[in-house]
Amino acid sequence: MDAAAVSCPLPRTETARVLLGHGSGGRMSADLIHRVFLPRFGNAYLDRLDDQAVVEIGGQRLAFTTDSFVVRPLFFPGGDIGTLAVNGTVNDLAMAGARPLYLSAGFILEEGLSLDDLGAILDSMRAACQRAGVLLVTGDTKVVNKGSGDQCFINTTGIGVVEHSWLLSADQARPGDRVILSGTIGDHGMAVMSRREGLEFDTVIESDTAPLHELVATMLEGCPEIRCLRDPTRGGLASTLNELALASSVGLEIDETRIAVRPAVHAACELLGLDPLYVANEGKLVAIVGESCADAVVERMRRHQLGADASVIGEVTERHPKMVVMRTRIGGSRIVDLHPGEILPRIC
Amino acid sequence: MDAAAVSCPLPRTETARVLLGHGSGGRMSADLIHRVFLPRFGNAYLDRLDDQAVVEIGGQRLAFTTDSFVVRPLFFPGGDIGTLAVNGTVNDLAMAGARPLYLSAGFILEEGLSLDDLGAILDSMRAACQRAGVLLVTGDTKVVNKGSGDQCFINTTGIGVVEHSWLLSADQARPGDRVILSGTIGDHGMAVMSRREGLEFDTVIESDTAPLHELVATMLEGCPEIRCLRDPTRGGLASTLNELALASSVGLEIDETRIAVRPAVHAACELLGLDPLYVANEGKLVAIVGESCADAVVERMRRHQLGADASVIGEVTERHPKMVVMRTRIGGSRIVDLHPGEILPRIC
Repeated sequence: MDAAAVSCPLPRTETARVLLGHGSGGRMSADLIHRVFLPRFGNAYLDRLDDQAVVEIGGQRLAFTTDSFVVRPLFFPGGDIGTLAVNGTVNDLAMAGARPLYLSAGFILEEGLSLDDLGAILDSMRAACQRAGVLLVTGDTKVVNKGSGDQCFINTTGIGVVEHSWLLSADQARPGDRVILSGTIGDHGMAVMSRREGLEFDTVIESDTAPLHELVATMLEGCPEIRCLRDPTRGGLASTLNELALASSVGLEIDETRIAVRPAVHAACELLGLDPLYVANEGKLVAIVGESCADAVVERMRRHQLGADASVIGEVTERHPKMVVMRTRIGGSRIVDLHPGEILPRIC
Repeated sequence: MDAAAVSCPLPRTETARVLLGHGSGGRMSADLIHRVFLPRFGNAYLDRLDDQAVVEIGGQRLAFTTDSFVVRPLFFPGGDIGTLAVNGTVNDLAMAGARPLYLSAGFILEEGLSLDDLGAILDSMRAACQRAGVLLVTGDTKVVNKGSGDQCFINTTGIGVVEHSWLLSADQARPGDRVILSGTIGDHGMAVMSRREGLEFDTVIESDTAPLHELVATMLEGCPEIRCLRDPTRGGLASTLNELALASSVGLEIDETRIAVRPAVHAACELLGLDPLYVANEGKLVAIVGESCADAVVERMRRHQLGADASVIGEVTERHPKMVVMRTRIGGSRIVDLHPGEILPRIC
């Protein structure tokens, strides 16, 4: 062996690879989007980094959004991958203030999936479509060999009609606006994790999966100053707030005492060493709303079953732009950052 | 052990499971759709069994279609999964006579995929979008743990605008209509299989993946009697013809001598024991066209690069409804049926 080669080895080029954290909804997800996707596909729609595009066709504004669902296990308290696949896409349409109309569904099935399980998933999708008033109008099914998938992955893509003329987008938050949260956080993520880890609590934790378009319609009727709506799914409330602060170049100050967490969710988070701020929700929304109508919006929300626990949890500020700061329960304050890596893989 | 149990065992209930053949585009795919999907979701759009839905929003007719791509290997002569994902969905819009406008893309990445490979796939998607004149406006990325996926699956869903007033659908074929095929068959499937099986021929077989919307626009300009357009992908020409015969309750008679197969594709099929009629295409279309303008349509198609080898390959008949019959090269005739099971798994 050449001694020179040992003392001065050539740098070994490591192949950069996709890691679980790239799908977490945290900082690694953001990196992948900014470094790999946007440089190639950047356009006026994608660059907004909203969860849906609003396009205009023949003078009609349409919301268009896609999501793939890879949750494990397929069935969990409060729902299954089918419920999620419908409600998740309905909600991404709703967050543009759109009325959801049509869905497509693409299935990637692993050889060996029981047809009974597939049937149960499809039954859930049908029920969720009926509840949300959307029609599944086109679909596709692929099968991959055993070991090349994991039972069932579902993509749903949705079209909704935008019947108002406002721009609801992540970059619309202004200092003085209020931050509204529609209810408790962490329910979905902890329902899935409890099932996955075989945890049992006195109270069963159920996913909060639900279609939010009616709640949104109620909110929009009552306030012309809704700047932005977003559902805090993967990466939880913390990630959503950071995305909003970043897109609008504002600071967000939130109050820990205003953020509701169910006791069982709190206990499960403690047990697993997780912060509920980073745990996924599937039936909650965050709204940035002009100060003048924030209280009225909350009042309207509370009259709807899915907004019964709504409250103002903080406000938008000029201070510390692009950062989220939380006043803690014990009177201090802490920066709530994007999670650096992988939080809860395959939670939706 | 109880002797009675041995002599008279309880019937063992086999769990029905998803098999590779359910994704083949043949009879098992049709069974899965008819027995599992349609009973739950049947509606005026899905029941047509077209490769896209045409919905009306605000007085505007829109085509809407989804496809997931799970091809293995990711890269093959003539294209890769990214090229396919764009062209495949563009073509399903084109088959409704729609002008493709917007795409969504949903990625399911397996932990460990090289970012270089992902970048190359995205470069192909960008190039294909530019070629087809469509804009990728919304997306989603999920990551699954190693062993739960296979490098990269892509769903694309597309919206196009239908600017004519005809109904192009599988049930519109009438006796006397002509069957037109736009070019050679089997190129895509054999390009993928050659790479997968490590076969080498004197001539490299390249995938025919291409966007067909311009060819379709040319055809529609020239003929008001186009009944139906379909691209013979999974399951090949044989499956597409059977679907059309079934949906329209007509017989189809085709002429083997009119169906062009490249020599290298023919040789590869012989080697693998495959019939090119069942092998996937990604840049070809079948048109059912009224007799009066069939020749004019073929002439128009031949002036377009992607229709240079177009020809009338047969006709629609009242005889043997729901069946496809081929006059063979040696003067006999044979029934071309749906393939009973799995043909070429993961070809697109």
